[in-house]
Amino acid sequence: MKLFNKVAIIGTGLIGGSLALALKKKGLAEEIVGVSRHKKTLSLAKKMKVIDKGSQDLEIIQGADLVILATPVNTIINLAPEISKVIAKGCIVTDVGSTKEAIVSRLEKIFPRYVGSHPLAGSEKRGIASANAGIFKGSLCILTPTINTDRIAEERISNMWIKLGAKVIRLTPAAHDKILSFVSHLPHLVAFSLIGAVPGKYLKFASGGLKDTTRVAASDSELWADIFLSNQKNMAKAIALIEENLSKIKSAIKRRDKRLLIKILKNAQDKRKALRG
Amino acid sequence: MKLFNKVAIIGTGLIGGSLALALKKKGLAEEIVGVSRHKKTLSLAKKMKVIDKGSQDLEIIQGADLVILATPVNTIINLAPEISKVIAKGCIVTDVGSTKEAIVSRLEKIFPRYVGSHPLAGSEKRGIASANAGIFKGSLCILTPTINTDRIAEERISNMWIKLGAKVIRLTPAAHDKILSFVSHLPHLVAFSLIGAVPGKYLKFASGGLKDTTRVAASDSELWADIFLSNQKNMAKAIALIEENLSKIKSAIKRRDKRLLIKILKNAQDKRKALRG
Repeated sequence: MKLFNKVAIIGTGLIGGSLALALKKKGLAEEIVGVSRHKKTLSLAKKMKVIDKGSQDLEIIQGADLVILATPVNTIINLAPEISKVIAKGCIVTDVGSTKEAIVSRLEKIFPRYVGSHPLAGSEKRGIASANAGIFKGSLCILTPTINTDRIAEERISNMWIKLGAKVIRLTPAAHDKILSFVSHLPHLVAFSLIGAVPGKYLKFASGGLKDTTRVAASDSELWADIFLSNQKNMAKAIALIEENLSKIKSAIKRRDKRLLIKILKNAQDKRKALRG
Repeated sequence: MKLFNKVAIIGTGLIGGSLALALKKKGLAEEIVGVSRHKKTLSLAKKMKVIDKGSQDLEIIQGADLVILATPVNTIINLAPEISKVIAKGCIVTDVGSTKEAIVSRLEKIFPRYVGSHPLAGSEKRGIASANAGIFKGSLCILTPTINTDRIAEERISNMWIKLGAKVIRLTPAAHDKILSFVSHLPHLVAFSLIGAVPGKYLKFASGGLKDTTRVAASDSELWADIFLSNQKNMAKAIALIEENLSKIKSAIKRRDKRLLIKILKNAQDKRKALRG
């Protein structure tokens, strides 16, 4: 069953491209058009049959009944006014940005039928070439409706994610950004800090531990600078907490307090074991 | 070709058990005996055909021409004097401990034919049940001979690791501990700190980023307390470096210095991309 007639994806990278592929595979969209800054991306997207048509120009999204913004956080906010001039008032708009407070407060003023989404389905990979229809299956998708959100639009967006195999949950934009600062943004920040601390000449000795722990540091630097800056206050608190933990462990090692050290590590070990995978 | 007649493995856990399996598979040992504190481990090891005979008592290692110590760092040091009373003077001794300065300086005084080894082939798993003959294939094994090391013993140990599929390199114990503090011990310490910082109620929102970054925090807490304490000075320096990096990123976020933030993250990203896997 087609949920949408014409879907426009703004930003045909890993997430945008994967979403287009998944919508096609599930037969949820009649037509999918893509917008990218890069001609190469668009021709690859067409070649891979990710999109039906592509353009560097926003004109192509005219007549869409669903627009999905899948660019970095800042670009989502910057493109919104221009997009609103091209689409019809009834068009449903969503985004897949990694922070929600800044985006939602801005976009719900611009679009009458806007619903914030955040599928927790990214990876350190980037770009259309890594697009994969399966990445949403079994993943979590957070929706961030507010009192201003059009309920029918919210239901249709929720329905879309569910049909793509995601488990949908709803959070306020503020709760989303706080939680994500711990479960996603801090791990990335720590991975960047950790690989930065390892002298380059020692990298040839890296085994599984270092590789796992820093894998997400291969993620795009501009994208993540944007995310950290758009979640500034929560990041400050999350960083303070890990600094506190590092300091506790450092001090236990310095004082050779084995009992305390084991207690701290055991707590962490139990928490990690509760996570699967 | 049998390299050894009777091999004794002290500590039949993940590494000791995998080593026994690998030695058997490659036909490098005529007989393998195992020592463990735990009766259950020994009966499982025999059932899995990891060892031919097992005992909680060191008497069983009598007559061995190779002894491999595969217990936590502290236990290696504590057991050495007792082992030396049971084995013959000509017996070759090695260990697979994760730090080398403390172990090597102690063991080379106790055993006339001792060679320090560190196969970089562990994981967050533990115990004989996870033993796997293949974990050394393609891995790195660091040997830490000193001016006191018996050259024939060193060659035979090197030969053993090569036959198990490892790439052998030699470092001084001091260089080993410094390098490992960055490429293995710090990543573990950071993973423990990071999962410790995430509020438990948020764990259900964890996706791949947090899971990868904290995977090694599921490692055994006592084992790692031992490693950190036996590499105290290097850990202090390594922790200072990541604290410095965290602080730089924190300050760039606080001052909204996007250019600097991207520069720091890009540096880290480039370094991580140079690592495979």
